[in-house]
Amino acid sequence: MSGQVHEFVSAALGQRKLTLLIKNANLLNVYTGETYEAAIGVYKKRIVYVGPDSGAPAASNSIDARGLTAIPGLIESHMHVESSMVTPSRFAEAALPHGLTTAFADPHEIANVMGKAGVKAMVEDSRGLPLKLYFYAPTCVPESKAVTSGAELTPEDIEEMLGWEGVWGLGEVMDYPAVLNGSRKISRILDSAITRDVVIDGHAPLLSGRRLNAYIASGAEADHENFTVETTMEKLRLGMYVKLRGPYVLDAQRFTDALKTIPHPYNLIFCTDDVMPDNLARLGHLDYACRAFMQAGMDPVEVVRSATLRPALHMRMPHLGGIAPGRIADILLLEDLKKFTINLVIANGVPVAKDGRLLVQIKKRILDGPARRTMKLGPLGIEDFRVDPPMRNGPVYVNTVDFGESNHEDKGKAFAEMILTRLSKAKVNVVNGKLSLGETALVFVFERHGKNGGKAFGFVRNLIKNGALATTVAHDAHNLLVVGTNPEDMCTAANLVIRSGGGIAAVRGKETLARIKLPIAGLMSDRSLIEVSKDMDNLRRAFKTMGVLDHPYMPLPSLLALSVIPHARITDKGIFDVDRQRFVPPFTN
Amino acid sequence: MSGQVHEFVSAALGQRKLTLLIKNANLLNVYTGETYEAAIGVYKKRIVYVGPDSGAPAASNSIDARGLTAIPGLIESHMHVESSMVTPSRFAEAALPHGLTTAFADPHEIANVMGKAGVKAMVEDSRGLPLKLYFYAPTCVPESKAVTSGAELTPEDIEEMLGWEGVWGLGEVMDYPAVLNGSRKISRILDSAITRDVVIDGHAPLLSGRRLNAYIASGAEADHENFTVETTMEKLRLGMYVKLRGPYVLDAQRFTDALKTIPHPYNLIFCTDDVMPDNLARLGHLDYACRAFMQAGMDPVEVVRSATLRPALHMRMPHLGGIAPGRIADILLLEDLKKFTINLVIANGVPVAKDGRLLVQIKKRILDGPARRTMKLGPLGIEDFRVDPPMRNGPVYVNTVDFGESNHEDKGKAFAEMILTRLSKAKVNVVNGKLSLGETALVFVFERHGKNGGKAFGFVRNLIKNGALATTVAHDAHNLLVVGTNPEDMCTAANLVIRSGGGIAAVRGKETLARIKLPIAGLMSDRSLIEVSKDMDNLRRAFKTMGVLDHPYMPLPSLLALSVIPHARITDKGIFDVDRQRFVPPFTN
Repeated sequence: MSGQVHEFVSAALGQRKLTLLIKNANLLNVYTGETYEAAIGVYKKRIVYVGPDSGAPAASNSIDARGLTAIPGLIESHMHVESSMVTPSRFAEAALPHGLTTAFADPHEIANVMGKAGVKAMVEDSRGLPLKLYFYAPTCVPESKAVTSGAELTPEDIEEMLGWEGVWGLGEVMDYPAVLNGSRKISRILDSAITRDVVIDGHAPLLSGRRLNAYIASGAEADHENFTVETTMEKLRLGMYVKLRGPYVLDAQRFTDALKTIPHPYNLIFCTDDVMPDNLARLGHLDYACRAFMQAGMDPVEVVRSATLRPALHMRMPHLGGIAPGRIADILLLEDLKKFTINLVIANGVPVAKDGRLLVQIKKRILDGPARRTMKLGPLGIEDFRVDPPMRNGPVYVNTVDFGESNHEDKGKAFAEMILTRLSKAKVNVVNGKLSLGETALVFVFERHGKNGGKAFGFVRNLIKNGALATTVAHDAHNLLVVGTNPEDMCTAANLVIRSGGGIAAVRGKETLARIKLPIAGLMSDRSLIEVSKDMDNLRRAFKTMGVLDHPYMPLPSLLALSVIPHARITDKGIFDVDRQRFVPPFTN
Repeated sequence: MSGQVHEFVSAALGQRKLTLLIKNANLLNVYTGETYEAAIGVYKKRIVYVGPDSGAPAASNSIDARGLTAIPGLIESHMHVESSMVTPSRFAEAALPHGLTTAFADPHEIANVMGKAGVKAMVEDSRGLPLKLYFYAPTCVPESKAVTSGAELTPEDIEEMLGWEGVWGLGEVMDYPAVLNGSRKISRILDSAITRDVVIDGHAPLLSGRRLNAYIASGAEADHENFTVETTMEKLRLGMYVKLRGPYVLDAQRFTDALKTIPHPYNLIFCTDDVMPDNLARLGHLDYACRAFMQAGMDPVEVVRSATLRPALHMRMPHLGGIAPGRIADILLLEDLKKFTINLVIANGVPVAKDGRLLVQIKKRILDGPARRTMKLGPLGIEDFRVDPPMRNGPVYVNTVDFGESNHEDKGKAFAEMILTRLSKAKVNVVNGKLSLGETALVFVFERHGKNGGKAFGFVRNLIKNGALATTVAHDAHNLLVVGTNPEDMCTAANLVIRSGGGIAAVRGKETLARIKLPIAGLMSDRSLIEVSKDMDNLRRAFKTMGVLDHPYMPLPSLLALSVIPHARITDKGIFDVDRQRFVPPFTN
């Protein structure tokens, strides 16, 4: 608002025409909890008048909002743009119609590929978008020493990024063991954030009691890793902003019922974290979470506050999150509050989407240059997928990473159980020097950042039943991960991804069942979200026929290489026993 | 917490001994609204553990809080230290036993006397106190062009002060007409604050509708000028932090009842603004407001939030305002929550007051140097109080500034009416060249900052009935104001104040009825608050016998020179018609 104070003042006084006047709206007032009829006057980016229609200044444009409920634009305080597989500008295009007007994103996916340059690229791609996108400085790149990532962020890098315009806080401090163990690196990073007095986002799955207290004492203000009602309640009581991800991974009804047992959850926030492109296209973004909590019977005012006022307070941005003078004019007009059906989205004072359709042209940006050259692998040959068993014939024992499906009735617990693997052993037959895999599938991870050309292989169960899947969306280092039941399909799939400069490919019997080209950092496309979501639909269909372990929130192969999730993972360096923090060989006794 | 993250983490984990453990407390949890038994573990300045007694780490000191309710230390977000007539360190001594552990003060009184140097002196006197004192940069020094102040603060000065450690936000933007009229100076000041993204405190008495919208659109986030329920409700709805001053100037019952009619006043805060020394000694500080709203039947959790969590959110200090890990260990143990009786005050992890008595020694600081040399007037003679009527004998008309007592049943409205004056005319007889004043009293204002040696006189009614009162506590320019019914007493009173280097003196028939020496900037003493409050008691008693118009919140003579309050004032430059923004002569037709 700098330099413009008097414009807003004089517009409020009626000395210059409002640029937009919303008349006869049912205003849901997040500050008082009341809903009443009001006019909302906007001048350029700001709201300058809220009050009776009769007192409103004249306007050059007006909207009759009779029958519609006005709420503030939605604010997402914990998410990763990359998970939607499109660039920030494409994400904005897709998310604005869902009422998202501000988002704070942790670009740690691209940072693992490109380091500071990746963060910079995201910041630059986001500049001037009608969706206000702010970024956190990622804290844990790489996620551990068990992987080779494309880049490493040092405490100095983080300190530098915290000074960039568009970077607003410290990203989820994922390495909670390091926090608890007093790692020098993480302590320095936390110190930087505390000295700069910026928001510190947290990540504390399953922590409780003293360990949770200790983690919060380090300065972490928020946590989105809420799978169970019990830990959520504990975090609320301990003053964290508790970010509930909505029905992608938790049961809104269960949480709503539990939250009704406390007088007032002052620090409740909704977030999305990761939204796959198909989900964003079909179910929505933060609006989907709001809808689910509405349906579960949460007080509508609390639902709205959890996605507007409270994230604004958490992010220390008092000019966001409310419909009041001086606030940025981010306003949603809802047809039905409880169904959370959005009629019109106004961002920065401009109507940007109506009935789910974008009204404005978003200048397509070029996220070009180095971001398109992150695939440092050349074409692979079948020999790259060769496994030499320790004998020519007979049974051999292998270490396997086993996924187990969970049928827990609690959605949150079910997902939490599903992502946990088990390190196990399997007997595999060798016939004439070739493995006869049976129910066991093969995994290859190729370091693809041009760092050391490393690769590793291992065995996995209950992840894929036939064909092969290759992907550079392989958290967090995003190397080339290939899982499959035969080397031929694996090689074909891998080369499809390599040729695209990154992405995902599903192959069976030489047939390409599905493919998503993600040439930007191997993570994102600059095609529209709708196009990418169609590819994702195909991929999910292919997963079904291939028996790939999928979850609406995220297909499980993407998490196979994530070396910080218990109990075992496979990275470019080998099969990693997360609990014991050591590698194990593929073949064993 | 910089550099100490791991200390807090390891203390929470039980790897080092807590410095203090509070056991068996009834914790009022401001984040959930629950009250339950808990242990609170402190390491140095921070809370590091909150949870069951059984899980608490070992401690080198512990307190059994059975039967006591633990709430966060009180946070004052709008006040002026100078009003209590003592230095910051003396204020801390007096306010800590009342549970005040953090305060944001606008030093605009001393700034009017000494400019930036005054602000700097306040910041320095506050450094390292157990009461965390932060300052706002004063925005309106001087309050208008109708006075001569000791200093002027330019937009550049304010910009500079916003960069000082210990300065945390823009002080109440009092000159709301300038905001509404688009004054270049105030716009530049607001722009500085917006660019620096600091809290902007407001001041919007009686504004409503478009004008209130316009004022808020300028960026002001809060307002403490709440005299009526109606404007308070309007401000709450418009997203301001509404700061209620408590029963010094408003009727807690009336406000409590009104606030119950809205679902949830999210932005409600309590503050004190100005607390006279006698009130602080007798009634308390922010605890007095809490007590009053408790007694009026406000939900105790909301009362506590209004003085702890919400001011912390408003000030964007998430490490304050709650009892949770990572927060500064400011904790009150209450004997009775609803009576708000404080047993123990813990500030920065250290017990500092018990049963109203200070437990720690506060290092007496020397607020010396230029602050003690602000009285630039030498002794006055009787001739300085001479008034020459335009004739030797006969009636003459004079312009008078009339105070009117208000008997309004609403305390807030009563005070608001009481401070408003009326510009009127009176007939005064002249006998042998001397005025026979009758019910009219004489006022002299002497510029005392060594700027121009200016002085002015005028006539006032209903402010004093006999004797004379001289004071340098004369908002906001704090010149030497002398009101009285005869020049002799006026001269005596004035010289007493001059000899003290500032202060207040009440004289009748050559007898000194009361005197408060305030040698620091003519506003403060470095004696203890108890000593100063005894002087204030004497002064209030003298006021009764002298018929001086007094109010518990503030004696009315202190406001006679405040040139921004309608409708007429008397400054060192003359009798000022506030409504018409012009001076009028003492004698008229």
